Amino acid sequence: MAVNLTPPQPADLLAIPGVTLAAVAGGIKKWTRNDVVLIQLAPGSRIAGVFTQNAFAAAPVQLCRGHLKRSCEMRALVINAGNANCGTGTQGLAAALRSCEAVARQLGCASNEVLPFSTGVILEHLPVEKIEAALPEAARQLDGSPLSWDRAAQGIMTTDTIHKAASKLILLDGVPVHITGMAKGVGMLEPNMATMLAYLATDAAIAPALLQTLVKEVADASFNRVTVDGDTSTNDSFVLIATGQSVATEIIDGDTRLAVLRAALIEVAADLAQRIARDGEGATKFVTIKVTSAASVEEAHRIAKKIANSPLVKTALFASDPNLGRVLMAIGNALPSLDTSNVNIWFADVLVVENGGRAASYREEDGQRVLAPAEISMRVDLARGTAQTTVWTCDFSYDYVKINAEYRT
Amino acid sequence: MAVNLTPPQPADLLAIPGVTLAAVAGGIKKWTRNDVVLIQLAPGSRIAGVFTQNAFAAAPVQLCRGHLKRSCEMRALVINAGNANCGTGTQGLAAALRSCEAVARQLGCASNEVLPFSTGVILEHLPVEKIEAALPEAARQLDGSPLSWDRAAQGIMTTDTIHKAASKLILLDGVPVHITGMAKGVGMLEPNMATMLAYLATDAAIAPALLQTLVKEVADASFNRVTVDGDTSTNDSFVLIATGQSVATEIIDGDTRLAVLRAALIEVAADLAQRIARDGEGATKFVTIKVTSAASVEEAHRIAKKIANSPLVKTALFASDPNLGRVLMAIGNALPSLDTSNVNIWFADVLVVENGGRAASYREEDGQRVLAPAEISMRVDLARGTAQTTVWTCDFSYDYVKINAEYRT
Repeated sequence: MAVNLTPPQPADLLAIPGVTLAAVAGGIKKWTRNDVVLIQLAPGSRIAGVFTQNAFAAAPVQLCRGHLKRSCEMRALVINAGNANCGTGTQGLAAALRSCEAVARQLGCASNEVLPFSTGVILEHLPVEKIEAALPEAARQLDGSPLSWDRAAQGIMTTDTIHKAASKLILLDGVPVHITGMAKGVGMLEPNMATMLAYLATDAAIAPALLQTLVKEVADASFNRVTVDGDTSTNDSFVLIATGQSVATEIIDGDTRLAVLRAALIEVAADLAQRIARDGEGATKFVTIKVTSAASVEEAHRIAKKIANSPLVKTALFASDPNLGRVLMAIGNALPSLDTSNVNIWFADVLVVENGGRAASYREEDGQRVLAPAEISMRVDLARGTAQTTVWTCDFSYDYVKINAEYRT
Repeated sequence: MAVNLTPPQPADLLAIPGVTLAAVAGGIKKWTRNDVVLIQLAPGSRIAGVFTQNAFAAAPVQLCRGHLKRSCEMRALVINAGNANCGTGTQGLAAALRSCEAVARQLGCASNEVLPFSTGVILEHLPVEKIEAALPEAARQLDGSPLSWDRAAQGIMTTDTIHKAASKLILLDGVPVHITGMAKGVGMLEPNMATMLAYLATDAAIAPALLQTLVKEVADASFNRVTVDGDTSTNDSFVLIATGQSVATEIIDGDTRLAVLRAALIEVAADLAQRIARDGEGATKFVTIKVTSAASVEEAHRIAKKIANSPLVKTALFASDPNLGRVLMAIGNALPSLDTSNVNIWFADVLVVENGGRAASYREEDGQRVLAPAEISMRVDLARGTAQTTVWTCDFSYDYVKINAEYRT
């Protein structure tokens, strides 16, 4: 059901010096696929992360926050699919810690140099002994090739239908720097600071404080702009890994190379974020919603998200029905104080709402024409400022209901 | 698809002295059913109303607000289904005004003693000439019988599958007072101050200032506690009509009879509100969500609404799947600062979450047993205060998507 989304070709992915990966079958759920991913980082690698704002933050999220508070220098990540280890109390924290300790033993580092991640069903206890049992084989398979990134991206999937990874090569003052990322997530998805699980790695050396700034900037420009169903997960995690293995010198705040690096990181992260919306549960449409001339970015974002999350807008998009009124309704709900008389709305290039009312030039068949394709865009202009945003989402189909009514069974 | 909802029996409805009603077929849409409702009120009748908070308030809502600002004394209401007259600019306001003028001519009152209401598709111009043409016949049919309330409740429906009306007889110091209400609305429904269209009439005489207080209190305890899809309509209107035709003397603030009257008004309004959730688009479950021991009513309400509007919770309820984690997720999203370690959750009488984690005593089969019926209740206890709320909603089924993907066609 994914919308114009193809799997990454391993040949299109770039190895990141300092990063090796492996995916093995731990049997976390009753399945035979790979579901435990181990990532080893070269000494000196730094990580900054952003995590869910949900009060029920999962045990691995709590542990990640703690480990990163101590230091940004990390040596490994361990990720499991099939169980979120959330709502599991002290036992859940102990299980997450045990997985870090097992990785530390396997790779010869400290347990607080390991970041754990889990994704899957909430409120069930993590069978950590299965992760422990899978780690020796994972350690044997650790490998830095593009193919290992591809396998890792597959290993972290839950209800994703297609795995998600992307790369970019940039030159910083003539020196090559590599960026590769992977992500998963298709439902319970309105990231608030981060998406369910996303990893972006570069061999650039980035100063710790700058790394922390960058991960937030990149999240805001990518994963925080995606929504599938408005339900923010308890396990959202996005980390930016800088191994420092490139010959490019360390990048610090104010560096002339920063603009190029930031743009490239955002480009790869936004690519991954869009892949998430394209693979949204039951998606038949990929929808880009732009809000322009807003008084603030927050206001633009609130309106774009309200449109993107409206069940009525989403079902109309599923039907390719230019039901303009539902978009109006969503805008008016997002901002009750809005002066509606200046609002203009375009579906693709067709002006559908002018000065808050149906555009005189609008013909129903034009609306139908631009909503028929699988890729849909709309723009809302508020005429009250200079701020703007773009949000990506998908439609709401029978299959969203089917997938989520049957998920646990 | 409505959940345990039967049409009101005309024999169960009470006539309200001072109120006569008629429903006729105006052909507002391509259908033959009654879609224009006229209500005449005896001289001296007073009305207070609450209306949508949506910035794109429909033309009739704008006019209602204006007319009620001048005076609470009203002589008539005119309601059409099939067209919301929203996003229609000056032309829409003129059309709503024309409908008031036509009613005024027909009934011999002033046009600003008439309140107009519209419900249906947004952003299409109201064929007001069809309302004008239908009014003479409506005026001829005006009648105060319970059957005319029944016919009016049918005339205001859009995608409702069953019409909604209810009555109650109370004694105030031994003097009988009648209350009858009707409502419509099944989708684009998370009333914010009011539901789509709801009317509550009593023959009690109520002081103007008290009437205004009462309409808000009643809305907060009834229609503001219902959500179908989280999408607040542009046309939400709830009015409380007091004809003063009862022999009971006028009720003023501080009156000893007020508690009985308020409770009865809330009872009828809550009955109508629950009928709305039972007839929610595609509903197969009627769900009551109670949040207790909250720090404030707002906090309790935010959490209850977040659970009620979560697509993931709603699809799990459709599947009768005790997917507890989704309820946790919704609570944590509603209140990111919540100390989760004191949260307890019950599905019906089964403790499912204890101290923020899966209850040790919880067995999956108990969860399945209490989620199987068409009537489901859950309670979330936050252990941080004394405030509480109850919210009514329905599940999210294939038919919600079907209804809303096909609505305009």
